[in-house]
Amino acid sequence: MKLYDITQTIDEHMTVYKNKAEKRPIINVTRTHNVGGVRESSITLDVHTGTHLDAPLHMQADGTTIDTMALEQLITRCKVFDFTHLDRGISKGDLDHHKIEKGDVVLFKTRNSFEDFFNPEFIYLEESGAKYLTGIGIKGVGTDGLGIERAQPGHPTHHTLFNSGVYVLEGLALKDVPVGEYELIALPLKLKGLDASPVRAVLIERD
Amino acid sequence: MKLYDITQTIDEHMTVYKNKAEKRPIINVTRTHNVGGVRESSITLDVHTGTHLDAPLHMQADGTTIDTMALEQLITRCKVFDFTHLDRGISKGDLDHHKIEKGDVVLFKTRNSFEDFFNPEFIYLEESGAKYLTGIGIKGVGTDGLGIERAQPGHPTHHTLFNSGVYVLEGLALKDVPVGEYELIALPLKLKGLDASPVRAVLIERD
Repeated sequence: MKLYDITQTIDEHMTVYKNKAEKRPIINVTRTHNVGGVRESSITLDVHTGTHLDAPLHMQADGTTIDTMALEQLITRCKVFDFTHLDRGISKGDLDHHKIEKGDVVLFKTRNSFEDFFNPEFIYLEESGAKYLTGIGIKGVGTDGLGIERAQPGHPTHHTLFNSGVYVLEGLALKDVPVGEYELIALPLKLKGLDASPVRAVLIERD
Repeated sequence: MKLYDITQTIDEHMTVYKNKAEKRPIINVTRTHNVGGVRESSITLDVHTGTHLDAPLHMQADGTTIDTMALEQLITRCKVFDFTHLDRGISKGDLDHHKIEKGDVVLFKTRNSFEDFFNPEFIYLEESGAKYLTGIGIKGVGTDGLGIERAQPGHPTHHTLFNSGVYVLEGLALKDVPVGEYELIALPLKLKGLDASPVRAVLIERD
């Protein structure tokens, strides 16, 4: 099998949402090899750091939490689409000539994957695109932006997706991934009661 | 497919190594829904918390780091063995009548999986067992203890395994898993330069 690691590296210098200092990971080496030959570390992470999976609780007070996500749906076939030509949000008109079917997980490769800084004009999924996708009945969507939407009052893209049980992966690293079909693995940590989790996301191409 | 989640839940009340307060996760809700309708959280984690994968750097100053682990080896066939009858370390004599072959990943189900507290007498892999397994040429080992060894001066079990390129999963939750063969998925977060990572570990039984 061929494996694509579609995960951003987590370190203190990584790109964080809106460059907010409080969203930057903090790493502490808590023990070094000169103490009994053992090195240990701890990490402080915003759960929406880098490549991560949102839970409905992120946007909905009565939403489900990240530890209850159905793992079977996060080990699944998926389709990568190329929207690198776009310099604005992805709308219904960008999607409706692609082969997207009920039960699909769709990942959007955009110019975001080629930018190693936080671009406030990042490419996102417009409400019209979210409505189109939930109308088809997809089960998940992934983007290479740090958010699936931006600057839409009331967060209608998130709400449209969550209301239809569609999961949302953000911060994917798709630069080196050709358009096509893959097996996706993107399992969240089992963080009790939380609104998101960082994930190690991979795509697998089987022979 | 049938999926077994073999991951401990991460929360502030979980069992931590030697019950050390500094190893307990800290969870902060950093934004609530009454601020723009968005909930966000951060978590502070010892990277050896709960179900986790060690990197050689944990025990070896020149060891490789968790972000360089070969992911293909962590999406792989594995074998679960039952050692719930043991009340001491797992030795060569416990292993040598089992069918363990070159390239295997072996997971040990012990009484640890049935204890929801830190037992200082947890079941571990003795040096003789580690030498036997590396002699066969296994590629990974997993345990339901929070450590693969205990109270062995100089940590010979870890060193024996790491010197042979065998990876070490700790803190698996195997209580409900029957003995048998499965597909394992246990991918670490992409934590730059660190000595371990929490993982969401699952076993898959395909039809």
